[in-house]
Formats: sequence, structure tokens, C-alpha cells
Amino acid sequence: MAKSGKAGGRKERDQRTERKIVEMAEGVARSALGGREPQVAIPTRARSNTIWNKRKGILEMGKASQDRQLFNLNQAKSFMQTMLHGSSVKDLIAADKTLSLRGMFYKGLHTVAGTKEKTFADQDESDGILEDLEVSLGALREELHIFAKKAGTMVGNITLVDSGDEIDCRRMGSGGYAIPSIVEPDVIQFKRCEAKFVLHVEKNTVWSRFNEDRFWEKHNCILTEGGGQPPRGVRRLLRRLHEELNLPIYCLLDCDPWGHYIYSVIKQGSISLAFESERLAIPEAKFLGIRAKDYKACGLSDDVQIALNDTDIKRAKEIAAYPWFEDHKGWQREIEGLLGNGFKMEVESLITKDISYVTETYVPQRLKAKDWLD
Amino acid sequence: MAKSGKAGGRKERDQRTERKIVEMAEGVARSALGGREPQVAIPTRARSNTIWNKRKGILEMGKASQDRQLFNLNQAKSFMQTMLHGSSVKDLIAADKTLSLRGMFYKGLHTVAGTKEKTFADQDESDGILEDLEVSLGALREELHIFAKKAGTMVGNITLVDSGDEIDCRRMGSGGYAIPSIVEPDVIQFKRCEAKFVLHVEKNTVWSRFNEDRFWEKHNCILTEGGGQPPRGVRRLLRRLHEELNLPIYCLLDCDPWGHYIYSVIKQGSISLAFESERLAIPEAKFLGIRAKDYKACGLSDDVQIALNDTDIKRAKEIAAYPWFEDHKGWQREIEGLLGNGFKMEVESLITKDISYVTETYVPQRLKAKDWLD
Repeated sequence: MAKSGKAGGRKERDQRTERKIVEMAEGVARSALGGREPQVAIPTRARSNTIWNKRKGILEMGKASQDRQLFNLNQAKSFMQTMLHGSSVKDLIAADKTLSLRGMFYKGLHTVAGTKEKTFADQDESDGILEDLEVSLGALREELHIFAKKAGTMVGNITLVDSGDEIDCRRMGSGGYAIPSIVEPDVIQFKRCEAKFVLHVEKNTVWSRFNEDRFWEKHNCILTEGGGQPPRGVRRLLRRLHEELNLPIYCLLDCDPWGHYIYSVIKQGSISLAFESERLAIPEAKFLGIRAKDYKACGLSDDVQIALNDTDIKRAKEIAAYPWFEDHKGWQREIEGLLGNGFKMEVESLITKDISYVTETYVPQRLKAKDWLD
Repeated sequence: MAKSGKAGGRKERDQRTERKIVEMAEGVARSALGGREPQVAIPTRARSNTIWNKRKGILEMGKASQDRQLFNLNQAKSFMQTMLHGSSVKDLIAADKTLSLRGMFYKGLHTVAGTKEKTFADQDESDGILEDLEVSLGALREELHIFAKKAGTMVGNITLVDSGDEIDCRRMGSGGYAIPSIVEPDVIQFKRCEAKFVLHVEKNTVWSRFNEDRFWEKHNCILTEGGGQPPRGVRRLLRRLHEELNLPIYCLLDCDPWGHYIYSVIKQGSISLAFESERLAIPEAKFLGIRAKDYKACGLSDDVQIALNDTDIKRAKEIAAYPWFEDHKGWQREIEGLLGNGFKMEVESLITKDISYVTETYVPQRLKAKDWLD
């Protein structure tokens, strides 16, 4: 039922997470009682400890970790912060509530008794400790009952259940279903899905064009957008649609380094948060366009050209050197094409052909010809 | 029916808008054929032409207007741009499609025949011309079939129909219904509403807290958020909920100049776009909090204090001088309170009391005591 209905899985996941927190706390307590220095091992979240797993096609975190000790002047504060947030997460699980990153900062914030020292200087410090907790517990932020600002919407040939409410994404009007920040299987279950693929677009204005033209109905698919760089909730939902329902994910992004980077994060994960890739990355995601060749292939006019600036050129070269693009002939050609053109192109620029050229001609042709980069 | 169902009103609104465009074009044609200089009158969109209508409680545009002439070197370009966008809007209405602001820029963009001159230098120029069209035709952007980036979500005790699809906002899970950019009566109709008021919050993370605690169910209301400064779609929907369903609108915003400004725009309209106030402003909207007095009233600790910087102080004084706040004792006291405190407070800071203090104690108490600013 709808009221406060949570699916069966919740308790199990929560029990698992809670156990991990209790184990961490007990380890600390044992050390203290045994006269040893209390410490926790925190896997290193740094580029130096990020490994490109070519076989799996994702970024992974390496084995490096650092001990965080209570009786070490440089580490005492972060040690206590880690315990504090660990304890807050345990409270959240017990109360069956979730909190935002900002909320966690406030929840943990106080003046340490007998001092004038605050527990956290700012939210950045708090966010960093939460990432430490994620990696050291091996639990996604979402499993710690913590959410972030949400963005992104969805429509299409699928019915899902969100917190007990049945959401028919075929009947969501012009607005759509707002994708929440936490989309784990105990919050969202897939119920009925006829869709054969997912079309993911960069911007919600483009999404509106596709929804208005009822692309998802004509082509039997699901239509999503992530408000630019999609937040974790959108990436996790795409991953679940791909993994659990075997749906291919096609990305329609701008022909510029930012579009390429968005694709790279959807596909391989982000370099700064490699530990999340195992649950978020979609190595099989396809880049449908916009492609550098489209300027000629689609017969576009020079109206669509937005000149590359120095930052764009620098970023394009950096992206070309990513390990997963470095050996990829298609991507090397694509980025050379972008640099050779000397200009960027946005998805919206296809409107210079016709309002619905992108929904009626461009995407259908590319899908039919299987003309994409992967 | 759902498929491409538009409610009856659409055609009527479109006919009205189309007639206005045709009239503008015919006026120009008549002048040209009669040997007179073609021109259109564009009401002046400037602070100097913005009037505070105290009786209505909204910002209005004054009577000043400027002629835009074809045979005037300084005006020829903008004259032609106005005609170009007018023609594009006519196309959109004929095709029964909508376009984003970015899309309109691309639709109008081309090289003027026989020259190397582009029709528009950039999107800003295009957006400005669209605003000119709105005011000179007396038609909202939404009536011109033009939409902007959407933001904002909604849940609560209301059922609405969006483009033929019935949306039960009581069963929207943790994600919610994504509020579209165009919410005119022919797109969205209110069907069944038991809710007695609307609680509008600033951030979607706060909204998630209220939704998770099912505040809207316990207090029989509608819960909305606008992703910070709410876009026009959200403001227009709030206005319609207020006007057509007689629902009071309570705003829960941060205690800082930005929160006060958001409230001011919801209430009176924005200074730069005064012509839209008649359809968007809600003079009766209430500011429920956070209030400067809450630091003491709620017994908050100094953890919640975020020091005001020079820009904040300057903005606070500017807002205090707005005509609608200038004579308002409550608002003068409120802003003095903020400046006297010397610090800002966020809605999330109430989490320092308890995760659900804001949903279970703060808002219910304020509503019961009718303790708000209006």
C-alpha cells in the first residue's frame, strides 16, 4: 500500500549497513579496551589509487588505504568526525529516515564540549568524511540513507513502484516523473516494461521536445534527462534499467568536451569517485550524437557553429587521453573531428533544420543504422 | 484520452495569440503599402517604466513605449528580429508545438541573404526580442508556445490532468511530479483537490524531508519546491492554485536576503519583468519562515549561524527599501532582525534540533499560531 509502504528489501539492506557500522565501532572499542590505539582504515580516494579496469570497462579504486588514528594530532579530528557521522547514519537507519548532505552537516555540527572547536568547519569537510565512510564501509551513500539534490525526469513505456506508489510513466503528461536521489531496489521496483531501450538526453529542454513529440511512444522506449551532468540518482537508475531489464542506453549529448565528459562519467564512472563505479557505471552505454561528422552529414549551415575556445581544446585533449578513449579508434576520430571542425554543436542546433528534425529524422536514422560510438 | 490529448481551451488561446500576431504584421504591411514607415510600438521594459501598484499589490509595467522602425539604422535590425520571431511563433502555433528559448534562437538564426550578417548575435539578443514580443502582443511567453528550462516538483492531495494524462499527486512516490514549464489551463487542469493550502519550500532537499515525513498527508496540503528561485512554470502554477482553488500559499525559505528576494518575486513579481506580474504574482503569499527571531524562539545553538557578508548586508538594505516592504512594519522588523543578528539561517539548520523538527514542530506550530509575514 501507498501510505509509508517500503518494499521487503529495505530491512535487509539496512541490517547489512548497520552491521558494518557496528563492526567498525566495535573494532575501535576493542582496541581501546585492549590498550591499543583506536584506528580505522580508510581506502585512499585519490587519483593515484584509481585504476582503469579494462576487462570490466570501469574505473575502480585500488587497494591503498590509510589508517586514521585517534591518538595522532593530525588525524584525531577526522577520526572523531568519522565516528560522529557513523553514529548519525546509525540513527537514520534506526529512524528509517534519510537526510541530505547539507542535513548531515547540520546534524553533526556542534561545539566540542569544553572547547571552542566546532565538529565541522564547513559542509565540504562533512561531505569528505561521508565519502570516507562510503568507501571504508563499502556502502553507497544511498545505503547510508543520505541523499543529494535531485535532478532529472523520466517518461516512457514502463511502470515502476516508488515507495509503494505505482508510477505509470506512460501517463506523466508534459512534466514527467521526477527521478529521486535514492533509487535503490527497496525504494524503486520495476513493474511492467515494454520499452526496448532508453534514450538519455542532456538537457530538460531537449527532453521536452522529445516528450512533446511522444518519441517514447512511437519508438517504444524510456526517455530520461539528467539536467546536464546527471546526478547519482539518474546514473544509478540508468544502470538498473540496463542491468535488470537489459535495456541499451543511448545518450544524446552535445558535440563538445562537456558532452563527451558526461558520456564518459555515465560509461566509466568519475575519476574522483571511482569507488562508486561498480554500482553506477554502464560500460555498454552508447554515444548516439551529436557527432562531429554531423555538420556535413546533416547538411547544417554555419549557424550551428560555436567556436572552440582554449579551455575546450585543452579539455578535448585531456578526454582523448583517458585510458578508455586512448585505444578507441572511434573516439580518437571523434575528438579529432571536433578539433578539426574548430567548433562545438549543440543538440538544439538541429532545430535550424526543423523543429522536430532531431526526433523524427536524426535519432531514428542513427538508431536504425546502429550508428553510434560505444 | 492520453495520446496527444489537449484540452478544449488550447485552440481558443492559440487563435487569440495568432490574431495578435497577424494584426501586428498587417499593421506593418498597411504602413508599407500606404507609403508610410513600417513600425511597431514596443512597451518599455525598464525599471523606469515599472510601477508599484499598491492597491493590487503587484508590480506593473507603465505606459511608456518606444516605436521600433524599419527605416531607422538603429532600429532596423531589432525591427526585423521582431518580425522574424513573430513569424516563428506563428509557425509554432500552426504546428501545435512548443520550443525552448534556446530553440527559438536557433530557429531564427541564419545569415541575412546577400550579407554576412547573422540574424542574431547570441541567445541574449533573441531572448530580449521574445520579451519585446510578449509585452507588445500582451501575451505571456507560454502563450507564444515558448518554454524555458523546467525545475520544481510537487506532491499532495490533488489530482490534475496534464496534456490528457491524469496525475494523482498523492501517489507520486519519493520522486514527485515534475512541474513543467508551461502550465496554462489548456495544458493543466485541476481535477480533484482536498488540500487546504500549499507549502512551498525553497530547496528540493527540504522538499524531500517533508515528502518523506508525508507532511502533505498529515496536514492535508500540497507540497512544492522550485529549485531555489522558482521558474515561471512553478510561479504560475502556485498562482493558479491560489486563484482558482483559493488555496493560501505559505513559503518556507531561508532567513537571508536570497530567501527574502525569492518571497518578494513570488509575491509581487520581478522588477525586470513587471509585465508578467499580472499573471504570476501572488500578493497574498505568506512568508512562514525561517524568521530572524527563530534563533531565540526555537532555542537554536550558534552552530546554525552563517555570518552575513558585505553583499548580504547591502542586499538586505536594498530589499528593505522595496516599496512593498518599505511601509510594512513586519518586514522592516524582520530585516532589522536579520541585520541585528548578523547571521543568516537556513531551513536545514533546524536539523540541529532534530531531523524532523521542521516538519513535526516548526511548521505545524507556525501554521496553528498563524505566525507568518504577509
